[in-house]
Amino acid sequence: MKNYKIVVEYNGKNYSGWQIQEGKVTIQGELERAVFEVTGETTQVVGSGRTDAGVSAKAQVANFLINKEMNLNKFALALNAHLPDDIAVRQVEFVDEDFSARFSSKKKTYNYYFYVSNIRHPLYDNYALQVKKSDVENMKKACKYLIGEHDYSSFVARNSGKTNFVRTIYEASIEHVEEDLYCFSVTGSGFLYNMVRIIMGTLIMIGEGKKTPEDMQKIINAKNRTIAGKTVGSVGLVLKDVKY
Amino acid sequence: MKNYKIVVEYNGKNYSGWQIQEGKVTIQGELERAVFEVTGETTQVVGSGRTDAGVSAKAQVANFLINKEMNLNKFALALNAHLPDDIAVRQVEFVDEDFSARFSSKKKTYNYYFYVSNIRHPLYDNYALQVKKSDVENMKKACKYLIGEHDYSSFVARNSGKTNFVRTIYEASIEHVEEDLYCFSVTGSGFLYNMVRIIMGTLIMIGEGKKTPEDMQKIINAKNRTIAGKTVGSVGLVLKDVKY
Repeated sequence: MKNYKIVVEYNGKNYSGWQIQEGKVTIQGELERAVFEVTGETTQVVGSGRTDAGVSAKAQVANFLINKEMNLNKFALALNAHLPDDIAVRQVEFVDEDFSARFSSKKKTYNYYFYVSNIRHPLYDNYALQVKKSDVENMKKACKYLIGEHDYSSFVARNSGKTNFVRTIYEASIEHVEEDLYCFSVTGSGFLYNMVRIIMGTLIMIGEGKKTPEDMQKIINAKNRTIAGKTVGSVGLVLKDVKY
Repeated sequence: MKNYKIVVEYNGKNYSGWQIQEGKVTIQGELERAVFEVTGETTQVVGSGRTDAGVSAKAQVANFLINKEMNLNKFALALNAHLPDDIAVRQVEFVDEDFSARFSSKKKTYNYYFYVSNIRHPLYDNYALQVKKSDVENMKKACKYLIGEHDYSSFVARNSGKTNFVRTIYEASIEHVEEDLYCFSVTGSGFLYNMVRIIMGTLIMIGEGKKTPEDMQKIINAKNRTIAGKTVGSVGLVLKDVKY
């Protein structure tokens, strides 16, 4: 068997997330169909993680095993010809048979785009969340409390099915992009279900003055979902990078 | 009569351009409907220029005359409540009765986004043109020939209905945005019908090596539409700014 690693860019807007589900259109489902149409082989395309409905990826990583040895340049083009326009295989390479996009990953980076304005921005609304009023400096201060190895129980959806909530966040910052548009960037060993969106909801609560930057420490320590912010929408979220 | 100047941001994707046309959904049409719904007055909303079908604007400027004197903050919010999500009035102000968004404008800046990759980028495709292969440095060199007062007959759609093709271009440059994404930015006294899209098509032809950067001068001098590049699509084009 040949093990193929692929890097995939997608606009998640029209998909029910990464993972195959009966009767739903998903990124994994589209990729497995394209691999079958190109190679005639049925396989499981395993992603580094399962992005939620509506979430996009700049560089999701996945792998799959098939028998055929393909010409890599032609394979990428062939897969893209069989994929919808909002999904593209940007790279294909051969990897060792023990490489798993899911279990071999070391770090992931997510970006969450938001803009601060009481009037909507039609040119940002496809990929950023509108925040009507915010003290972005306080949001930046709050970011530093996120860094380190912590039990992130406060930032996990209650139906996650996980029992170990300890993860390491290596970097967390907010960068100004342009005008009133910002990008929250977070790099970690891995992320719990909805974790980035709940962290973002908590940062927004702090930006609005409902909590102080220092409260981020208390919220982490509390290990209690109910005191963190709400789970914000998927539109601003992009899986930016996966490191192995 | 009160003269209102508005700054409008819109995603042109779902519209048949700025100008009102029977049976078509247009930006001007939506704005005139919103003004009527909010004020009860019928008026003509005059834009700085008529953007084509599919073209977006970061800051289109328009004006209109009505009898009522509105509270400006509330007026913007009320108009936005009556506009679809992909159009937003970002500013409203009172101006002298002789101000015309169309005839008083001094300079306009258009941006055209493109990326250079033989593989599509789903996260750029909503607002940028894919160029499969290009020498961007040659495109940059060609830009400088555009600057100045010239007869731009080579860059005008043949059905424009205009007879004077002399315009002044103050600035023309290509900036790197990120990864393989670039932005062509052009500021001029005014632009002919399809002018920016034909200039962009010509720059792409130069980037592809079908013409040299120096050929841009010859193409301008020729005053002949047939030797310039093709009219590229509207998706990458944004009216960025209008100065008065």
